[in-house]
Order: sequence, then C-alpha cells, then structure tokens
Amino acid sequence: MERTLIANLGQKIGEEVLIKGWVDVRRDQGKMVFLDFRDRSGKVQGVVLPNSPAMDRAKELRTEFVVAITGNVNKRPEKNIKEGVLNGDIELEIIGIDILAEAETLPFDMSADGFNLDLVTELEHRALSLRHPKLQAIFKVQAVIIDSFREFMKSQDFFEFQAPSIVPATAEGGAEVFKIEYFDKKAYLSQSPQLYKQVVMTAFERVFSVNKIFRAEPSATTRHLTEVVSLDAEMAFIDSWRDVRDMSEACVRHILEQVKTKCAKELAFLEAELPVMIEETPTLSLTEALKKLGAPADKDLNPEQERKLCEMIKTETGSDFVYVYGYPTKQKPFYVYPNPENPEFNEGMDLLCRGVEWLSGGRRVNDFKQLMTHVKEWGMDPDKISMFLEAFRYGAPPEGGFAFGAERMTMQILGLKNVREACMFPRDLNRIDGLLSQ
Amino acid sequence: MERTLIANLGQKIGEEVLIKGWVDVRRDQGKMVFLDFRDRSGKVQGVVLPNSPAMDRAKELRTEFVVAITGNVNKRPEKNIKEGVLNGDIELEIIGIDILAEAETLPFDMSADGFNLDLVTELEHRALSLRHPKLQAIFKVQAVIIDSFREFMKSQDFFEFQAPSIVPATAEGGAEVFKIEYFDKKAYLSQSPQLYKQVVMTAFERVFSVNKIFRAEPSATTRHLTEVVSLDAEMAFIDSWRDVRDMSEACVRHILEQVKTKCAKELAFLEAELPVMIEETPTLSLTEALKKLGAPADKDLNPEQERKLCEMIKTETGSDFVYVYGYPTKQKPFYVYPNPENPEFNEGMDLLCRGVEWLSGGRRVNDFKQLMTHVKEWGMDPDKISMFLEAFRYGAPPEGGFAFGAERMTMQILGLKNVREACMFPRDLNRIDGLLSQ
Repeated sequence: MERTLIANLGQKIGEEVLIKGWVDVRRDQGKMVFLDFRDRSGKVQGVVLPNSPAMDRAKELRTEFVVAITGNVNKRPEKNIKEGVLNGDIELEIIGIDILAEAETLPFDMSADGFNLDLVTELEHRALSLRHPKLQAIFKVQAVIIDSFREFMKSQDFFEFQAPSIVPATAEGGAEVFKIEYFDKKAYLSQSPQLYKQVVMTAFERVFSVNKIFRAEPSATTRHLTEVVSLDAEMAFIDSWRDVRDMSEACVRHILEQVKTKCAKELAFLEAELPVMIEETPTLSLTEALKKLGAPADKDLNPEQERKLCEMIKTETGSDFVYVYGYPTKQKPFYVYPNPENPEFNEGMDLLCRGVEWLSGGRRVNDFKQLMTHVKEWGMDPDKISMFLEAFRYGAPPEGGFAFGAERMTMQILGLKNVREACMFPRDLNRIDGLLSQ
Repeated sequence: MERTLIANLGQKIGEEVLIKGWVDVRRDQGKMVFLDFRDRSGKVQGVVLPNSPAMDRAKELRTEFVVAITGNVNKRPEKNIKEGVLNGDIELEIIGIDILAEAETLPFDMSADGFNLDLVTELEHRALSLRHPKLQAIFKVQAVIIDSFREFMKSQDFFEFQAPSIVPATAEGGAEVFKIEYFDKKAYLSQSPQLYKQVVMTAFERVFSVNKIFRAEPSATTRHLTEVVSLDAEMAFIDSWRDVRDMSEACVRHILEQVKTKCAKELAFLEAELPVMIEETPTLSLTEALKKLGAPADKDLNPEQERKLCEMIKTETGSDFVYVYGYPTKQKPFYVYPNPENPEFNEGMDLLCRGVEWLSGGRRVNDFKQLMTHVKEWGMDPDKISMFLEAFRYGAPPEGGFAFGAERMTMQILGLKNVREACMFPRDLNRIDGLLSQ
C-alpha cells in the first residue's frame, strides 16, 4: 500500500491507509491505547481498540518510535470533533503496526504542552529538540525569509552568484577575523562578500548572494554568532542612494508579505506579530535623527538612541521601520560614497526596526580615481584588494547595495530573545554544537 | 527619461530612448563613429552621424567606458539587417553621450572574436574577464543548475536548511581538513554536511542544503578546488536505496531539462552538448560492472574503468549515465548501509557520466544499535559525533540521500577542461584570487 501523508488523511475517510511517522504521544488506557502520530505534514490521533490484532505491538510503543501504521480512517462522532485542528474530525482505527525504529527514553518532555527547555538544554539536545513544532516553526519562517529574498531579487533581474568563504586577506581590515591554516600559507574566513559583490556587479549589473560570513567577535551576547547567513545585493546604474533605499524597502516588504502569507500557522503558533511597514518608510538623515532626539550632532546613534528613535517614529507614523542615512564619512569603510554636497557625511544608510538595525547599505564610490584616493586616505594596502580595484579601473557604473543577516531578521520578526534560537546550529565563542573544551 | 534595457530597444523603433551600459566596441571612421553598447540584457550598435552634437564626446570614448546614451531607434535598411542577432534590425542614432565612468586601456582584447585567454591570465584578471559573454554564459548555466536543484527538491517537499561551515571535528575523519584558529580553541571547516543533513532529516523527513564544503587536498589538478558548492539531499521513509537512486535520477533529469530550456543561448554559444539521459538509466552493481569490464571482483572502479564502463553503456544503450551500486562496506564511511543479504557490500551508489562521477549517495544505517556497532568497528570516537548519534538514539526512519558539486556538474555539462573555469572565484593549493605567497 502506498503511504498517505497525515495531512491528507481527511481525504480518505472510510478507507484503509498506510501512514509512516513517529509516535508523538501514547496514552495507554488499559483496554484501549491512544496514539498520536506525527510526520512532516502534521499529526493525527489513532486508537487501538480492544481485541485488535495490533494490541500487543501497541503496548511496546513508546514516544519517538518510528512506525508504519495501517488503519481505517473513521469520522469522529460530532461531540469528539476538535474544530480548527488538523484531523480534528477523524480518528485512525489502527489495525497493523510495524516498528521501523525504536527510541530510547527521552531526556525531557517533548509534548506540545510539556516542552519548555532553557536555551542551554535546547542547544545541548539540538538533534532532538529540532523535532518540536516550536523549533520547526522558527526554521520554516527562516527558510521563507531566505527564499523570499531570493525570489524578490530574481524578480528584479538580479543574478545570483556564489561568494567565496575563503579569502586571501580581510576585506575591510579589522581584527575580528578567523585565520585558516591553508597548507603552508595564510588565508581567512570572509567577513562579508562586499568587495566580491561589487566586482560581480561590474559584470552582471544586478547581483545577489546568499552566503555564509564569519566574525571572530570574542563576545557571547544574545546577538552574536560567529557564522551567519548573509543576504547581499548590489545594483548598478543608480541615480542616487535613494534607489538602493527603495530597492531594499521593496525587498523587506516582499519578505514580510511572504512570511505573513506562507507562515500564518507558524506566526500564530509562536505568537509573533509582524512589524508594520507603512506605504513609505520614514527616512531621516543622521543629523535630523540626532536633532529629533535632542542629542549632539556628528555622532553615530547608540543602541539607546536607536530604540528611542524607533519609538518616536512608531508613535508619530505607525511605522515600525525607519531609515537613517548620512553617516560621518571617515567612520565608515573606504567604499562608501561621500555626499558630494557635504563630503563629511556619506550616502550610507541603515534600516532600523523595533529599536535595532535590520539592514545596512548605501551608495558606493565607483570612480576609480576617487576610490584610489580613499584607499590612500583610509590607509589600505591596494595590493591586498587588487582584484577589487581592477573591476573599477576598467569602468564601473554608479552603484550601491545592501545586506542583512538571515538569523537576525528571523529573530526580530519572531521576537526571539536570543539569536541562537534563530540558528539551527549556532556557533559562538564557547559552542560549536557542543561546548568547546580548551 | 527612463532607461530602456538594450534587449527592449526593438519595441521602441522611431522613438527617442535612454540606454545605460558599457562601450563594447568602438570603430572610428572619421566622419562617423560606430559604437557597440552592452548592458546586462544584450548589445546594440549605435552610430554618431557627421555634425552630431555628440561627436566630440564620441571621440573621447574608449572600450569599457560606462555611458548613458540618448538616441533615436532607427530601423536598418534591408541590406544591413543581421538575422538572428539581437537588435540586428535596428541601429541607435546617437544624439547625446554622458560619460558615467572612464576606463583605462584594457590589458587584453575583450572583443567577442579576439578574446582568447589562457586560464592563468583569465584568473589573474577575473574581475575583468567576468564581463566576457563566454564567462557570463558559464555562470548563468551554473546558476540555473543550482536553482533547478532547489526547485526540484522543493517540488518534492524537501525542506532547505543551512548547514554549518565551522565544525567541531572532522565529520568523517581524514587528514584533508582545514583547521581554523577559533579563539583559543580548535575548529575545522566542514568537508561535508553529511551528518548534519542526517540529523535534520530526523526532524523534517526530507531536507536539502546548498552550502560550501572545504577540502584541503594538497593537489592542483584540473579537478580539485578547496572550496565548492555542495548540493545535498536526504530523505526519510525509503523502502530501499532504489528510492534514493530514483529521486537523484529525477533530480538530474530536471536539472538537465531546465538547463536545456533556460540556457539554450548559452549552450549554443559555448558549443556544449548536454549528456543524454534515457528513460531509465542503466544500473549495475559494482560486481556486475567489474565483470562487464573483465576485471577482478572486489575492487573499486579506477578512473580508467569508469571511462571504459561509460563508453560501453553509451554504445549499448545510448545513455551517457550509469549508476553503480554496492561497494565494499569496509572501504566506505561508517554510515553507509550494508546490504542485509550480503553485508560485505553496501547500498551506496555513484552516478557516472561521460567517464566521471557526478553524484554519490545511497542508503544509510538508521538503526541505533547497528550504528553504534559501526562506530566501534570503524574506530570512531562517539563523543565527537554525539549530536549525530543523539538523532538516531531517539528514533530515526530508514533513510538515504545524495550529493553532488555544483562546479563539477557545470564543468561536465559544458565540457570544460578545468574545474577552475566553472568557479567564479576558485581556491586551490596556490591561488585565492591571486597567487599565494609563502
């Protein structure tokens, strides 16, 4: 008999079926045994009636046993129907049980109501906790975020390329980089595909990548991971940084819409409320933002100010989002485009939401002479970025781009407290799957 | 005026347009200047007529200058129409030229006919050579391969997850692993998402990943890279390894169909011929294959035998593909499922095409007791794979999966001579973008 997915059992009322999955819950009532089964599509309640040939086997079953079950799909009596629950109107009368794999006694309660792990235990048992609907919901939302990013960029004629992880030198300087023992030579893990996406942009105009980036930040806060999925885009032939702002806004809007549509069940289960993006996201220069906050000019926003600004914007406009642009040129990387009318401030931008940064981007320097001047002023070694410079030496259009982390966006959309919850196999200062020993 | 993409100029005959792009070729005929322009959508020929106000600017232009051009789209006289060429029936009469970025004199000929670099020069100038249609065609085909894999797996209800790159220990042992300086601790770059995909399979049943893997192979052959894109899939509730074989065959078939449809232009340009996949790919056990080759039994196929076997199958059946299954159990990793009827051979499989391996996979051991026996027999340290073992300790269904590299498949489909041609930023023993110094 062909396997029926549990979610499709409703179409088989009155028929004999074969399902395959895990024992989710087992309630032995002596004469009868009730069993909930789970597969990738959902859950169903089964019952082994007295005198059933399957009774002996049913007594052996424990939670997480893997089974193949034959049974009859029966409609439940009216009074037993659970409204709004998958298969709430049917019950599987079990006539045959085949045990495909046994399971040891679980180290903690995996049931829907009983599951309540602290994060350390959850991570220590990631292989098992991943089976819980709460964790599955988180990673389904994350998969939709990444897919929707890809879908949107492709709809806008962006070309996906594979950015490298192993790099010859740190792209943007900085000490927080992992060194690799590369045969008898030196190599590093990429902190950002920034320079690569700019190179590929000069060939394909509009490019994006979904790739890992690595940061050796020696901190173990709720917001830091050493390995994250970076969603990056870069576009040529912009008129100003506002084209990049508009593209990134449309991108985030598309992602939110897709999550809302495709993850309604997951959002409800996780009690998550999507942030509000109004028709045009409020956009302030850093100077305007600081003035609004009554803070001294010429400084970057600190975390407290970011929170305050988001609150003020929310109260005034209803928007959970706000763009801030125009940062002090010298405090940002060499490739960020200075405002020609006021070169002390650049055309970089951040998108804040609910008090934290979601996305960064802006216009880049595309003129080769200006780029070489920056390289010198920023004290960089042009030999270490010679491939990047070559792309601009031979004609590069006005351009810009943006980037954001999949884990952080997942965390923020779902209101999770720790970014580790938004990463299937989180890596940090002390943990790579298990705790690291010295 | 809004920019018109060059591919859409045919819809604007008789109109004034604005295009943006690069100067592809410039032919100065004294009184008139002919200019070919290129953007991400294609090419068009433009002409600056005598006495045009744009003439002075036109004289300044060189190859790879980035420009915004206003002009009138004119139909060509019948005798000048180039059939079968994009915009072969139109010409842009240039009335305005705006130089967006200049370019230095090119280090080599970039024209369609003149471009003929040796691989070393091509790699040394990757940032520039990427602009050539030959290279763009290769990476467009690669993007379609990766997209089609994703598309197919999703159509079969597989869930995409992000496999980690940083791992605590080598998944399968072996010396060819890169070590990372991970704060004051030890970490490595992942050689395969094998164990992770098996873990995630126990939660989501059907999973796939598109992630980087890293191999520290100290060789610089035409087939080795240290960083590649691995396309991985794993599926639960199989009846036998043949389910994995069938899924992988359908996957490759889908990819080939998509490449054929979406990359017809690129395949023609690269003069590539897709391999033939017949209705059912011939499938031989290793023993049968060796017998067919007249070779002694019990040994793995060597490269020469792989070539020979593919030739024989092609002659006999017309198929460029052949599956070989059933390898000596002890020569393969601990997780490969031994044939219960003949445990000295396993249920692993390879898909060969045109003489080389394209894809590997098979059934895995899912029974926890058997897995622990293998761990012991293979001399592995269970503590180093404790997360993996946990997934199987608590009930794992019969399962299997497969994997292949995006670069190698690109190379094979296009008949490229060196895998470096199929990787945008290839990393090997001696090269990470540039040549590595000691």
